[in-house]
Amino acid sequence: METTKVAIVGMGTVGTGVARLLLDHGDRIARHAGRNLSLEQVVVRDLSKSRGAEVPTGLLSTDLKRITGDPEIKVVAQLVGGLNPARQIMRQLLESGKDVVTANKALLAEHGGELFDLARELGRSIAFEASVAGGVPIITNISQCLSANQIVSLSGILNGTSNFILSQMEKGNEYGEAVREAQRLGYAEADPTMDVDGSDAAQKLAILAHLAFGARVHWKDIPRVGIDRVHVDDIRYAGELGYRIKLLAVARLLDPGDSSQGLEVHVAPTLVRKGSPLAEVRGANNAISVVGDAVGRVFFHGLGAGQMPTASAVVSDMIDMAVGRTQLTFRTLQLWSDREAQVDACDHNNVMGRYYLRLQVDDNPGVLADVAGILGQHDISIASVIQHEAAEEGADQDKRQVALVIMTHASTEGDTRMAVQKIDRLPAVRPGTVRMQVMD
Amino acid sequence: METTKVAIVGMGTVGTGVARLLLDHGDRIARHAGRNLSLEQVVVRDLSKSRGAEVPTGLLSTDLKRITGDPEIKVVAQLVGGLNPARQIMRQLLESGKDVVTANKALLAEHGGELFDLARELGRSIAFEASVAGGVPIITNISQCLSANQIVSLSGILNGTSNFILSQMEKGNEYGEAVREAQRLGYAEADPTMDVDGSDAAQKLAILAHLAFGARVHWKDIPRVGIDRVHVDDIRYAGELGYRIKLLAVARLLDPGDSSQGLEVHVAPTLVRKGSPLAEVRGANNAISVVGDAVGRVFFHGLGAGQMPTASAVVSDMIDMAVGRTQLTFRTLQLWSDREAQVDACDHNNVMGRYYLRLQVDDNPGVLADVAGILGQHDISIASVIQHEAAEEGADQDKRQVALVIMTHASTEGDTRMAVQKIDRLPAVRPGTVRMQVMD
Repeated sequence: METTKVAIVGMGTVGTGVARLLLDHGDRIARHAGRNLSLEQVVVRDLSKSRGAEVPTGLLSTDLKRITGDPEIKVVAQLVGGLNPARQIMRQLLESGKDVVTANKALLAEHGGELFDLARELGRSIAFEASVAGGVPIITNISQCLSANQIVSLSGILNGTSNFILSQMEKGNEYGEAVREAQRLGYAEADPTMDVDGSDAAQKLAILAHLAFGARVHWKDIPRVGIDRVHVDDIRYAGELGYRIKLLAVARLLDPGDSSQGLEVHVAPTLVRKGSPLAEVRGANNAISVVGDAVGRVFFHGLGAGQMPTASAVVSDMIDMAVGRTQLTFRTLQLWSDREAQVDACDHNNVMGRYYLRLQVDDNPGVLADVAGILGQHDISIASVIQHEAAEEGADQDKRQVALVIMTHASTEGDTRMAVQKIDRLPAVRPGTVRMQVMD
Repeated sequence: METTKVAIVGMGTVGTGVARLLLDHGDRIARHAGRNLSLEQVVVRDLSKSRGAEVPTGLLSTDLKRITGDPEIKVVAQLVGGLNPARQIMRQLLESGKDVVTANKALLAEHGGELFDLARELGRSIAFEASVAGGVPIITNISQCLSANQIVSLSGILNGTSNFILSQMEKGNEYGEAVREAQRLGYAEADPTMDVDGSDAAQKLAILAHLAFGARVHWKDIPRVGIDRVHVDDIRYAGELGYRIKLLAVARLLDPGDSSQGLEVHVAPTLVRKGSPLAEVRGANNAISVVGDAVGRVFFHGLGAGQMPTASAVVSDMIDMAVGRTQLTFRTLQLWSDREAQVDACDHNNVMGRYYLRLQVDDNPGVLADVAGILGQHDISIASVIQHEAAEEGADQDKRQVALVIMTHASTEGDTRMAVQKIDRLPAVRPGTVRMQVMD
């Protein structure tokens, strides 16, 4: 049986998982690959750190040249996080003739163009299944399994931390408590900003939008709202209406038959109908619903992070590279390629959708009429309203405030935003009306 | 751009869908494949039949030699159903040097060994994504995307017809009505036997068990129970207990760490907890829940049949073949290979599970004690019991019968079956007690 020599750079959580699979399960990997994958080098920053995998002495070093200088090593898992020195390491590996597997979505979202160009120039390949949705093999499914389709839309829960926090809030916990629980369980970083403000999901969405639609969108240009603005009251009202709130990353052709109409991309907390597959995704799981024009809707669900699920994706990529499949696929990927964009991002203002609005209003007669009047001026019709009786008797009846929840019929993002701006200026409305899209 | 010449044999529903994708969407297929797929020949049995795809005259004939005799044609979609002449056509195509894509699971389940041996001997490949779960790309996901894993279990809803019928029964329809509705909508054949008795699901499960576990199990040897024995009362009681009834196809290593313990395989109506992904699969959809030792649980859901979903799978296979990926994968597939079986089917009697029992008993004191006594003798403990008051007053109090529903804790298949045989011989019990496994 032939052998492909491989190496790992970076032995954090994922790197350690990858080493464990290669070292402890070489037999089955050989069976699945039709060849041995032999781990020849492991390069780390700090030799003194203890690691969860028993890497044989002699394999471990701090010297990248032990990989770049060994022409026998063909495939390298580059598992250093962050942008630098990850970017330089990627470049050195490609330049020394390696095919490179990475899980670093931030690096791809930021410098993917440069790295993919370099790989193509050098006749090398980059595989990145682990960069989006952890163990869920969405990259291969889009780039290979669904290749007979024009992808029409994809909607994903791509950030497990946010989904865990929202699941905690469904149990009645306030946002802050839920974040602390996520931190305690290791689902959230000490600084969870990138997770909860939608940046992490936007980076992953940018990769998927390149791949599925041939779009050329930078993650920072994707309109995004995080879950840090979701209040436990919204989760409760959504529940009453038959919905759950999920942080969805969405990319969708406005008109599948006419790509000149553009691609809608956004990340935002969204009301998803209970019982639908995306609504039932709980805890730190990820899921993606993909619609292809031939296949219809296909739904993928699994662990979006964690040592072994991510290592599963990395090692599957290493097997694909050793077998030669990745190289065949890489040539045709529409990822940061020099080909023209297949579709441009559309003007977000023109996107149609239904909306959930939560207003805090004075408990006076006539407020609902004023609000409905403004919505009507913008051609927004009301599908349903919830207004409960005020819970406590205020000392002064005039100052008592109540929540007014409105579900609209379809209207444009731009119209709804403008209407809400006007509503927020009504004297009987407390500014800061909550507005979320509803997915049907 | 290079061109790969392809052909189709059989222009039924799926063949017509495949022709439409190739003829109407050549541009995007070329973009995704990095090469053109040129449809050169379409061979049918009857030229006079009208078809849904505009196949240019000159392409259509009844002469298979126009494909087998043309060495330029490399990839053929063989879409003739049934066993004969499909088997002979497959052999002729392979022998004339073609790589063959098929959607014919019955053919693979029956003659897969012979056909895969022949393909391997001749250095050819067979692709069969469309043979299991229609548009859901489960074959590629198991054989490629999850290749870093030892698959521990897979549980699937693999027969859309049965799932549609069960979904109708949840609305309160009797079995017979539900079958007629499925026939009216085209989800069930005039003779739905293979769908409703579990045979179709067993054929698909046999393919997955070969692929995922290297098992060598013939579909006829898979213990199977169909949905024809499910009564609308069982669906109602399951609902009261928090479950839905689904026709599950299951393959599961008894001990993931020790394959000598064997593989459990079966097809049977099963109680699945509401809210779990498999329970929420509605209508004619298919879904598969796969557990890998590294990745954890991954769930796939989509349309399991229909013209375009199935055509999506066939054309994706054709693209994989034109690109060369299938050929790399096929060499390592553990499908009817001459390699030794990785695992044998276990003795079904020793499989542990929880069970749902529905007895029809005389409404007398002491019956529950007798039933519980027999269960106790077989070490089966009772988790919960439902017995409603008899709906109607019988003329003779002694002859009034009521339903007694029992959920057990875990016990073996063999013990439970024996206990039920004894229970059915109690004078106060009407024979024919319903027994179904419960999935947690």
